[in-house]
Amino acid sequence: MATLIRGGTVVTAEHSFRADVLCADGRIQAVGGKIDMPAGTQVVDAGGQLVMPGGIDPHTHMELPFMGTTASEDFYSGTAAAFAGGTTMIIDFVIPDPQEPLMAAYKKWRGWAEKAAGDYSFHVAVTWWDESVHRDMGTLTREHGVNSFKHFMAYKGAIMAEDEVLVNSFSRARELGAICTVHAENGELVFHLQQQLLKAGITGPEGHPLSRPPEVEGEAANRAIRIAEVLGVPLYVVHNSCRQSLEAITRARNEGQRVFGEVLAGHLLIDDSVYRNPDWNTAAAYVMSPPFRAKEHQKHLWRGLQSGNLQTTATDHCCFCAPQKAAGRTDFTKIPNGTGGVEDRMAVLWHHGVGKGRLTPNEFVRVTSTNAAQIFNIYPRKGSVSVGADADLVVWDPAASRTISAKTHHQQIDFNIFEGMTVQGIATHTISQGNVVWADGQLNAVRGAGRYIDRPTFAPYYDAIRRQADARRPRAVPRAAAE
Amino acid sequence: MATLIRGGTVVTAEHSFRADVLCADGRIQAVGGKIDMPAGTQVVDAGGQLVMPGGIDPHTHMELPFMGTTASEDFYSGTAAAFAGGTTMIIDFVIPDPQEPLMAAYKKWRGWAEKAAGDYSFHVAVTWWDESVHRDMGTLTREHGVNSFKHFMAYKGAIMAEDEVLVNSFSRARELGAICTVHAENGELVFHLQQQLLKAGITGPEGHPLSRPPEVEGEAANRAIRIAEVLGVPLYVVHNSCRQSLEAITRARNEGQRVFGEVLAGHLLIDDSVYRNPDWNTAAAYVMSPPFRAKEHQKHLWRGLQSGNLQTTATDHCCFCAPQKAAGRTDFTKIPNGTGGVEDRMAVLWHHGVGKGRLTPNEFVRVTSTNAAQIFNIYPRKGSVSVGADADLVVWDPAASRTISAKTHHQQIDFNIFEGMTVQGIATHTISQGNVVWADGQLNAVRGAGRYIDRPTFAPYYDAIRRQADARRPRAVPRAAAE
Amino acid sequence: MATLIRGGTVVTAEHSFRADVLCADGRIQAVGGKIDMPAGTQVVDAGGQLVMPGGIDPHTHMELPFMGTTASEDFYSGTAAAFAGGTTMIIDFVIPDPQEPLMAAYKKWRGWAEKAAGDYSFHVAVTWWDESVHRDMGTLTREHGVNSFKHFMAYKGAIMAEDEVLVNSFSRARELGAICTVHAENGELVFHLQQQLLKAGITGPEGHPLSRPPEVEGEAANRAIRIAEVLGVPLYVVHNSCRQSLEAITRARNEGQRVFGEVLAGHLLIDDSVYRNPDWNTAAAYVMSPPFRAKEHQKHLWRGLQSGNLQTTATDHCCFCAPQKAAGRTDFTKIPNGTGGVEDRMAVLWHHGVGKGRLTPNEFVRVTSTNAAQIFNIYPRKGSVSVGADADLVVWDPAASRTISAKTHHQQIDFNIFEGMTVQGIATHTISQGNVVWADGQLNAVRGAGRYIDRPTFAPYYDAIRRQADARRPRAVPRAAAE
Amino acid sequence: MATLIRGGTVVTAEHSFRADVLCADGRIQAVGGKIDMPAGTQVVDAGGQLVMPGGIDPHTHMELPFMGTTASEDFYSGTAAAFAGGTTMIIDFVIPDPQEPLMAAYKKWRGWAEKAAGDYSFHVAVTWWDESVHRDMGTLTREHGVNSFKHFMAYKGAIMAEDEVLVNSFSRARELGAICTVHAENGELVFHLQQQLLKAGITGPEGHPLSRPPEVEGEAANRAIRIAEVLGVPLYVVHNSCRQSLEAITRARNEGQRVFGEVLAGHLLIDDSVYRNPDWNTAAAYVMSPPFRAKEHQKHLWRGLQSGNLQTTATDHCCFCAPQKAAGRTDFTKIPNGTGGVEDRMAVLWHHGVGKGRLTPNEFVRVTSTNAAQIFNIYPRKGSVSVGADADLVVWDPAASRTISAKTHHQQIDFNIFEGMTVQGIATHTISQGNVVWADGQLNAVRGAGRYIDRPTFAPYYDAIRRQADARRPRAVPRAAAE
Ligand SMILES: [Zn+2]
Ligand SMILES: [Zn+2]
Ligand SMILES: [Zn+2]
Ligand SMILES: [Zn+2]
Ligand SMILES: [Zn+2]
Ligand SMILES: [Zn+2]
Ligand SMILES: [Zn+2]
Ligand SMILES: [Zn+2]
Repeated sequence: MATLIRGGTVVTAEHSFRADVLCADGRIQAVGGKIDMPAGTQVVDAGGQLVMPGGIDPHTHMELPFMGTTASEDFYSGTAAAFAGGTTMIIDFVIPDPQEPLMAAYKKWRGWAEKAAGDYSFHVAVTWWDESVHRDMGTLTREHGVNSFKHFMAYKGAIMAEDEVLVNSFSRARELGAICTVHAENGELVFHLQQQLLKAGITGPEGHPLSRPPEVEGEAANRAIRIAEVLGVPLYVVHNSCRQSLEAITRARNEGQRVFGEVLAGHLLIDDSVYRNPDWNTAAAYVMSPPFRAKEHQKHLWRGLQSGNLQTTATDHCCFCAPQKAAGRTDFTKIPNGTGGVEDRMAVLWHHGVGKGRLTPNEFVRVTSTNAAQIFNIYPRKGSVSVGADADLVVWDPAASRTISAKTHHQQIDFNIFEGMTVQGIATHTISQGNVVWADGQLNAVRGAGRYIDRPTFAPYYDAIRRQADARRPRAVPRAAAE
Repeated sequence: MATLIRGGTVVTAEHSFRADVLCADGRIQAVGGKIDMPAGTQVVDAGGQLVMPGGIDPHTHMELPFMGTTASEDFYSGTAAAFAGGTTMIIDFVIPDPQEPLMAAYKKWRGWAEKAAGDYSFHVAVTWWDESVHRDMGTLTREHGVNSFKHFMAYKGAIMAEDEVLVNSFSRARELGAICTVHAENGELVFHLQQQLLKAGITGPEGHPLSRPPEVEGEAANRAIRIAEVLGVPLYVVHNSCRQSLEAITRARNEGQRVFGEVLAGHLLIDDSVYRNPDWNTAAAYVMSPPFRAKEHQKHLWRGLQSGNLQTTATDHCCFCAPQKAAGRTDFTKIPNGTGGVEDRMAVLWHHGVGKGRLTPNEFVRVTSTNAAQIFNIYPRKGSVSVGADADLVVWDPAASRTISAKTHHQQIDFNIFEGMTVQGIATHTISQGNVVWADGQLNAVRGAGRYIDRPTFAPYYDAIRRQADARRPRAVPRAAAE
Repeated sequence: MATLIRGGTVVTAEHSFRADVLCADGRIQAVGGKIDMPAGTQVVDAGGQLVMPGGIDPHTHMELPFMGTTASEDFYSGTAAAFAGGTTMIIDFVIPDPQEPLMAAYKKWRGWAEKAAGDYSFHVAVTWWDESVHRDMGTLTREHGVNSFKHFMAYKGAIMAEDEVLVNSFSRARELGAICTVHAENGELVFHLQQQLLKAGITGPEGHPLSRPPEVEGEAANRAIRIAEVLGVPLYVVHNSCRQSLEAITRARNEGQRVFGEVLAGHLLIDDSVYRNPDWNTAAAYVMSPPFRAKEHQKHLWRGLQSGNLQTTATDHCCFCAPQKAAGRTDFTKIPNGTGGVEDRMAVLWHHGVGKGRLTPNEFVRVTSTNAAQIFNIYPRKGSVSVGADADLVVWDPAASRTISAKTHHQQIDFNIFEGMTVQGIATHTISQGNVVWADGQLNAVRGAGRYIDRPTFAPYYDAIRRQADARRPRAVPRAAAE
Repeated sequence: MATLIRGGTVVTAEHSFRADVLCADGRIQAVGGKIDMPAGTQVVDAGGQLVMPGGIDPHTHMELPFMGTTASEDFYSGTAAAFAGGTTMIIDFVIPDPQEPLMAAYKKWRGWAEKAAGDYSFHVAVTWWDESVHRDMGTLTREHGVNSFKHFMAYKGAIMAEDEVLVNSFSRARELGAICTVHAENGELVFHLQQQLLKAGITGPEGHPLSRPPEVEGEAANRAIRIAEVLGVPLYVVHNSCRQSLEAITRARNEGQRVFGEVLAGHLLIDDSVYRNPDWNTAAAYVMSPPFRAKEHQKHLWRGLQSGNLQTTATDHCCFCAPQKAAGRTDFTKIPNGTGGVEDRMAVLWHHGVGKGRLTPNEFVRVTSTNAAQIFNIYPRKGSVSVGADADLVVWDPAASRTISAKTHHQQIDFNIFEGMTVQGIATHTISQGNVVWADGQLNAVRGAGRYIDRPTFAPYYDAIRRQADARRPRAVPRAAAE
């Protein structure tokens, strides 16, 4: 069945214009001022509203096994909740245990994700190194549509990648035309500070941010960036939460390096005072890494989005409920790290971004969808409103409001970090693969309807990377043989 | 008659894809993999080539009366030469003398430009201030399609705008939804240094760069940017030639300000050693302001383009031949400032930008066309390859080469600053308003075929500017009346 | 009579050591572990205390005629109040009206200052330009011990120096071996904003900071710095109040330029919320320029001191009482700008600087005394504890406390911006010219005992400035005569 | 026997003044305008010359066992050669092998150094970690006058300290009141690049800089700085050779961190073109780490000295002769890293620093002597010209010249990196412990006359570090017990 979105203003990363949008067979069939409607077409009235590419959340962890428990949100419930907020695609993570073969982990996650209602893809983490990892990276890029590899610079004793792993994996990714991504925190320092704090009797959630100060993130971001620079590989730094890592990215970008940065909706709006909440459950609910920061960092992060030094917004959606959090009752290092957000990202970004004059509507589309599609090389299939693209769209009412609450959200978590925030600008309709999956408060998500999206290697920025490498190839100095 | 560009790869600011492009009635009628050809359609074979938006040169001075003479290139010859290089639109400047009414100057320039072969528009300079200027700025924006006003911070005793003029004009532009542009050099310092150098017996062209060191430009750029910041108006800094002004722009952009920067093809590639050429004519031919700089600045300017801190490339095309330059034989301050380039910009940018891995082909389109169209609010009519857009296109052969020379160029000037440079990547066909105006070395420019292009005010970035101003509106503190 | 300071720890800019200090004939006669005491020597017991060079406040305005009134603190009362806080020398300002001869103004101020109890010197302002100013600058430096000239970049319509004045005066100062100083605020912008705010009905003190945002200061600082850079003259930027001007200074210093920066005690500790105080008198009492800033700037200013990018601390002591402030009851632009502080600078700097671990005691000496002495070329006569130096000293008790209040201070002003602040670390004894002028709460200031201190030109940093200029002298290119 | 230096101008870090200097019993006994000469006093005529604190080279490696050979310069010859250039003290390094007890290594080096002619001290390297290292650090600081610990971030597979070692050692140094120092290069990247280059057939010395690009140094410097910031320990980064590490230091200092930076004379003046010298021996002679850099870095390093962001100058004097270098004939990674310079540092610094207007004579003293003494807490015993200080002095003739050459130098190495450079400004006399050890070209160095200099912990900057730590001590949030 075809769907016609009628009467709206199409907003893309590039411009805004009045147009109808016709969807059929999962794709956009026409975009134009006046579209003839095939018989049986479902009509979505977008009068007075905006029609934008569906959001892409490039950083989620559905049903992740982590810190002795499993994230409460699964691929079905998570992609459905995403629909309710206007997000139509997620990129999740395959995270092998140390010594676990990459292919095995990849297949495990592919299995879990089959229940997804919306489209998805996977970054694959490199948490250790040997020849099999080298080989599996090749297989994943060539045969399984993976073009990004993730590295955790924190979580010592678990999935932390030391410099030796980073250097090997980045070098391999460069050969394969993939992009590297990093969770940037210096794991040695975090570990040391955790021990010091516990020894000093600081066992509550307030110890969490104290053990992960911004310098720890800035250092790791800078390190990953410089390793990437030397090896000539594009880099994407996930969840920048502070001035320090933003500055590392900005420095590199100003030098012409192909570095990209992501920011989470939460880090833009929530500060670290939450960890000193006298209620343990509340404080623990906010425990995630990197932690929320002192308020002054928010100004920097917004400026990062405005200036284009940060390109994407995400959530690191990774839900743990109070009973799970309780594992760290007497030791903050045991509180499962993570919280929700996939449903709310678009709305809080619009309200605080567009509504307050930080971003134009076109820039909003850029940072919630288009940039992610371009960086991870699925544009214009995703992230655009153009003929032939996947019909993943959101109809946005800039005048309507809602108040965010765990009581009403669709996420499988008993807490909402934006609880009580009233936002103006909301998704009235979400279209996934041409189907209306969210309309005026009704979810029509279909379990298993989501598809795995292949992402080809050698994204357009590799054109410049390869030419530059050619121009700089080292040459030996001819000399007479050793006497 | 329709024109079909067949078999090429369309390259836009956003992505690249195989498609034919059909043009008729001056517009693009279709873009797609397989286009049915109406009878009588002219075919341009773009096999193995790229099809890109025609170049926009946002900074030219055709037939400018300046320093006692008139630029040798007129609107016809200049727009024709532009075609030969793949550029299909220019934005030139109306420059009133002090006390000359803006409207009078505007009409004079409109008259001169009627002979143009390609499309054009005008920035209007504010060189003085009174109530009539305030009024004429309103008329020009409301009735004449002007959305940008230029300010010269140099040329003391002639067209220099002091801070008082800047503040008044920027403030007025803000009301009108226009963008301000500046030629950034501290005119007081330039004047002082000129006098010092002449007094010290330095009268040759080598005195030119000595009288305009980079600090002079950096200072003025920073000043204009901060004035614009305080007044909340968008700013465009023309012809950034040095690290210093780039850094001023970068700082402001990193803070979220809406500031844009232009760089000239010449400043990216030519250094200040030219002014010490023992041949006076050669040295004088390079005299323009800002001057060419020490080589180290070029690296910074390229990085500015790569990082997006500089958005546009231009030429400041303003031709003076040797007999005109000779006016400054015994006093470098009397050498008419200016040189050519409108024909060569695209090729040198491709060769040194894309060819050396500094820019992707998409970024090339962005900096030669799309960004200018967006900043000056004529996108997607210009700067895109999309249905409904003006059919201004260039077919680009990335494998073909040519050697630049004044002997063979189409510009009305006896010198070429890129003389002898062999570039790979050239325009094989240029289409203006759907007509093939340059094909395999043949110009088919039609005198007077160019149109004046209206540019609406309140470009999309004003959406954010206005909301931000609302959010920051000052409030009085209520206090009891004075005792 | 000789004075022996016994049992203290001498703290200099360089190091700390146990030593007695013997003063006689106005000078330090001996510094050492065990000093033989001449008969009749007065003993100051410094046991458990620190002995430091007396403070130098390089920025005060005693009895200044300004904005239609005269500052309430005169040279006698002001230097006496300074003693009570450990400050033994001030550098005040001669400020000629436009068109007033510099020599005439200088003599007027010398007359006013004869009543001073402590030593003093004068910066002379250049507020206009003609040949007589050029000549008087020569006379002042050669015959009257002036080595610094001040320029106001704000106060349009009064004493504002436009770029033309700056360029001429800086150039002249360079010839004479003097240092230039600037009050950095863009006066055109301030004027424009004042008019806008009044027009918008904002007439109270809250309009003051709104009319002088930090960008206005940062712009002017950067402009003065770049002009100084081009002309090769050393520059001292007074009362930096914000991140913006600090960054301008930092950039220049990192490039090797000889630029110095001053910060006021008030700007380090007081924020702009004071202007929104519902009590008009209170709000008005804080009106000074540049205004107090948003709290975040304080962190930057402290860092400026710690990093050495700011070298001196001052007060801009310029007292106006409530009846004087009332002149601006209905128009904030008419509130006399200024407040006190000369008595409190050392104590608040110690408490918040040394006490909180921002500065070492040696650094405290550096920023309260030694650096000013070196920059204004009166070191080691002032700013050191060494044999032969003027016996200007302070005995400091780091353990004692006092609470600052207008009720108890010695300044001739009815308000204290630090009211109620309890500081630990206070001057127990102040020695001026070898005499104990402040001891345990008793002032023994003698009217007229203060001396005018000559400051020689060509301070040590001019050694490098001159050699650098030689190395960079421009050369003409030899060319055949014009044909 | 007493020595009187008569008629010179004393130049210290703070100022310059005419004075004689009397030395006896190894110490300065008097500094003044007119000194009575005891009978039998040796007179050094310093008329027209400067008298400065003897140079301190804080970074040398005499007779170091390294890369399978031993540095050719021993403690006697090296300290004697230092005298010939005006340097009177060195700080060398104890470098334990991994697993070698620190105390054992320390004693070995103390034995080697007994032959030294001039005073010396030792940084001790932490190359591995266990409880014994923790304990030995305590012993060294408390009982053996060690206050600085060195860490090599490069040399993988040998002495490289990974983050875990850094974190443990920095944390321990903080407790002990010591300063940490680092050789900053990312050893993993260096190792990887070495393998890649060898695989690509690049085996000559040109491979050396290619395997250690500036980013590798900048990354490591930033990492060490941020670890030090988090742990609150002062840091000293040795041999900064490039813009990248200078920027890392500058950023930290601008944020108020206690970070210090050293630069080698060679890096200020020699560029990386030397590695492409067609003569293998010549190219290999320059192999040291970090390598010499592209010329543009030199400008930044000089600016670092001028701005005070770099505080000390050193040489990393570590001599290997051609037969030793030949070990790397077919593999650049096997060329022993190191070269000489201890004799030439002062002269090249004066010529290119003071002579070209980059530094004042006082700043010269600061960066060649005083700053090192203050940072390593032996001021004013060393680094000053004051009564009671060690009589380590140099008499400097700013008018005299010499041409540097391996043929005439006193260093035990067959090559001089400054070969053929004529410098103006030389040491005519060097005084060590009050004895004239170098006079007009004659060395009078006495084997074994040098003393080990104890350096106390808790240098003055620790005053601020400790107070700051107190102010920031983390506090637990009181909460009800877990339910
Ligand atoms: Zn993460
Ligand atoms: Zn994550
Ligand atoms: Zn211009
Ligand atoms: Zn122009
Ligand atoms: Zn002022
Ligand atoms: Zn003042
Ligand atoms: Zn080293
Ligand atoms: Zn070394």
